[in-house]
Amino acid sequence: MNSGRAVPELAEPYLRGVLATAGLDVEYVRSEKDTVYYLDGQGEEVAVLDVVGGYGSLLLGHNHPDINDYAVELLSSGVPVHAQFSKHPYANELADALNRILHRELDTEQRFYAIFTNSGAEAIEAAVKNAELDRQLRLADLTARIDTDIEAARAAVAAGAATLPEGHTDADALAEGVRSDNAARLAAGPLFLALEGGFHGKLVGSVQYTHNEVYRSPFSALAAQARFVPPNDAGALRAAVAAEDARLDTLTVVDGQVLRTAVPFPLFCALLVEPVQGEGGIHELTAEFAEQIRLVSQEIDCPVIVDEIQSGMGRTGAFLSSAQIGLEGDYYTLAKTLGGGVAKAGVMLVRENRYREAFEMVHSSTFAKDAFSCLVGNRVLEVLEADDGAVYRRAAERGERLRRMLELIVEDYPQVLREVRGRGLILGLEFADQSESGSEEIRERARSGFFGYHLAGYLLREHRIRVFPTASAMQTLRFEPSVYITDAEVDRLEQGLRELCRLLRDGDPKVFQF
Amino acid sequence: MNSGRAVPELAEPYLRGVLATAGLDVEYVRSEKDTVYYLDGQGEEVAVLDVVGGYGSLLLGHNHPDINDYAVELLSSGVPVHAQFSKHPYANELADALNRILHRELDTEQRFYAIFTNSGAEAIEAAVKNAELDRQLRLADLTARIDTDIEAARAAVAAGAATLPEGHTDADALAEGVRSDNAARLAAGPLFLALEGGFHGKLVGSVQYTHNEVYRSPFSALAAQARFVPPNDAGALRAAVAAEDARLDTLTVVDGQVLRTAVPFPLFCALLVEPVQGEGGIHELTAEFAEQIRLVSQEIDCPVIVDEIQSGMGRTGAFLSSAQIGLEGDYYTLAKTLGGGVAKAGVMLVRENRYREAFEMVHSSTFAKDAFSCLVGNRVLEVLEADDGAVYRRAAERGERLRRMLELIVEDYPQVLREVRGRGLILGLEFADQSESGSEEIRERARSGFFGYHLAGYLLREHRIRVFPTASAMQTLRFEPSVYITDAEVDRLEQGLRELCRLLRDGDPKVFQF
Repeated sequence: MNSGRAVPELAEPYLRGVLATAGLDVEYVRSEKDTVYYLDGQGEEVAVLDVVGGYGSLLLGHNHPDINDYAVELLSSGVPVHAQFSKHPYANELADALNRILHRELDTEQRFYAIFTNSGAEAIEAAVKNAELDRQLRLADLTARIDTDIEAARAAVAAGAATLPEGHTDADALAEGVRSDNAARLAAGPLFLALEGGFHGKLVGSVQYTHNEVYRSPFSALAAQARFVPPNDAGALRAAVAAEDARLDTLTVVDGQVLRTAVPFPLFCALLVEPVQGEGGIHELTAEFAEQIRLVSQEIDCPVIVDEIQSGMGRTGAFLSSAQIGLEGDYYTLAKTLGGGVAKAGVMLVRENRYREAFEMVHSSTFAKDAFSCLVGNRVLEVLEADDGAVYRRAAERGERLRRMLELIVEDYPQVLREVRGRGLILGLEFADQSESGSEEIRERARSGFFGYHLAGYLLREHRIRVFPTASAMQTLRFEPSVYITDAEVDRLEQGLRELCRLLRDGDPKVFQF
Repeated sequence: MNSGRAVPELAEPYLRGVLATAGLDVEYVRSEKDTVYYLDGQGEEVAVLDVVGGYGSLLLGHNHPDINDYAVELLSSGVPVHAQFSKHPYANELADALNRILHRELDTEQRFYAIFTNSGAEAIEAAVKNAELDRQLRLADLTARIDTDIEAARAAVAAGAATLPEGHTDADALAEGVRSDNAARLAAGPLFLALEGGFHGKLVGSVQYTHNEVYRSPFSALAAQARFVPPNDAGALRAAVAAEDARLDTLTVVDGQVLRTAVPFPLFCALLVEPVQGEGGIHELTAEFAEQIRLVSQEIDCPVIVDEIQSGMGRTGAFLSSAQIGLEGDYYTLAKTLGGGVAKAGVMLVRENRYREAFEMVHSSTFAKDAFSCLVGNRVLEVLEADDGAVYRRAAERGERLRRMLELIVEDYPQVLREVRGRGLILGLEFADQSESGSEEIRERARSGFFGYHLAGYLLREHRIRVFPTASAMQTLRFEPSVYITDAEVDRLEQGLRELCRLLRDGDPKVFQF
């Protein structure tokens, strides 16, 4: 359709320009396993080792043959992609397969209901919406009980069976005061609890629970806010809860005396956590903190949304990275790997005691719960679960291999590197601040707010390696290859990283020259 | 993986049960053009004429051969689905193709920047986010100007060059009062303007602009609210705007006198409209109202988001149904048909004067802007634009054929039907209230809140026709077939509808018995 004319850039030209400053504006034309290809000036394919892995979507690599063949077979056989409001056995099969895995890893027989979505952010929002519906229904019960109590107290006073609290002479005025105070407190909700460094998406709701201020603050007037606490800091979590007045007043009659007493109400709609924080720099939650989350969430009757969109589905050596630290969720959100690299699939799973069936009548999506992505999701689970979970074991083993390699580089370049973090195939390598480097060129890049992308640019240009920083922690490079990454590829990565570290240590400006 | 055991229902079992009450819980196994197939008891395929069309996603029918073959070719050739943060020429090509179509239909040369998404709801939220970023930046400019003015007034008073307004003796206190009043007014925003009957999605943000209270009200505490006005009622639109106090105060010095004056501020973030309301019962906006939207939005500097997710991309006989009524948007959202029946593709297009390039650094999605869905989108546009827009002409012609058929039935069954609405291939047939029917069975179904689905159940069971009501207007059946619907299929639909109307008119209970 372009009749030879130049195509203007209208799809994020500014971003493309920013990528170009680091030499990252490459066009990839093909991909398989852990390799992406671009064309050189002669039109020849150049292979690039990809350890970005689709921001964690490619645990099974680019264009996994079994999954791709199956996707092709589905499309070729006229799969009814669009059959909304009919039976969806493939969706039930996927939900069932997910349940059996959750039952095994969480050692429970409780059911998890499945709401399918088109992205991870949509899965977070579906979880939040069910949590809010549940909160509203619990609130309606509570306020109805309070109304009943208030009426009973008023009736007792009218009948001369009870006296008002000191300072009160008018039961109606007292009741009205309680109701109006309660209304003001209810208006403060819902609030969310989330962790510093957390990332849960960038839609109107989900961006509010994503800690990075650059992403969040321009949009903070659009939706209900979160209170952020540092990960693994139980005291801060308890303080955040204690800082809010999550109580309503009611009237009770005790021994002929009307008392104004307080009852807790669900001010917090949900607590959102990633068991291994992805975009925040690859930080693991501890088992101790997981236990504190359980205690606090129980105390305030606040459901826990465990965001396994990036960390889950095998990447850490188990299907749920949360199960490895004993973290229990009321909700689990999955996406990324669920699509097998070809489909856009997300799901939120909600524990039966938190589920509200009315949710099914108020939430839906034209594209979600479709045959294509559910069937692809089923095939992905088959690959993950095959050979008694060989993929999980391989993720742990490959992750260990990668981590050892990274740790040795940290030992050799203490001036340049700080530490390795993460588990399995979600690893982060934090670089030390280079803003006092002897090289002006390196100092400038270190102060640009874009340092990790400049590191990525070097590795791509000089070593044909695709790696990126985590989105909210620019000093940390992320490593999320597939389980099929080979020793030779790990060695290639090591070589590139060592050369990068050497240049940074030596203050060699050519690291950023191109 | 199921080892023969029964699969429990965990993917919306309640909804499935509701569908079953109308006989709609059918499993479709294959689809092409306007036909979906299920298997009968003997395992034989039964063909069902589908005029639901994937809730408006299938203007080109199920599994369009060109698009499907292309999708298969992409997957078979190892298309790099996951290549985030690289060059995306296919995204630019799609944006460019969309621009050329918009330029033609809107008779403008302004550029529209494209942000790609995974669903229509995500496109709405991306538009709202850019609108809010733009609003915040405009607010920052405005409040900075006010601060400067206030400081200038205070300095003039201090220098003895100006006197305070009557009743004021302290310039600092006056300045503080203005700032504090302004802060309170700013906290009221952002608000949204939307139309009664409008539908813009069901995510945390987008559900707030969707009028249906069943979908919206449980979640109203989650995000910023909309003011809803009846479609085609300019007075109501102006009244909704006038009801809000969208002014800030500032101080100016005129002739040695400090004056407290008001300046307008952007309290409304966006006005959202569907040119043809889909889920609200298929209602068209008038050209007169479109002109009023233009005037009001200009007066209050409020961008217009034209939601063409269901009505756009050819369905009404032009690419933009809004262009047909002279409605101009600052934003256009597309999805549904953009995915060609196989991909999950959405996009928001924003006019260059409203676009903020900073948006590219704060908004993103792992699955969006991917090669697969952008390339499929490009192919869809090629099919739409081929032969000088034959698809658009065909949509108009098929729509006319379908409309005439429906209108004749309305003439013949005035007791049962009210009217036909819509344009091209987005048509609605409104049924008269049957809650006083002579048949108890019909009365019950009419009062069930689920009437349209019972009509759909009859047509599916007795005539093998798949049709649904609009989601928020239960009395209106929707007709959104592909442009390939044949005369014979229209005749089949007519036969089914006539039989349905006859049974309802006669109060024959067997219409709902099965």
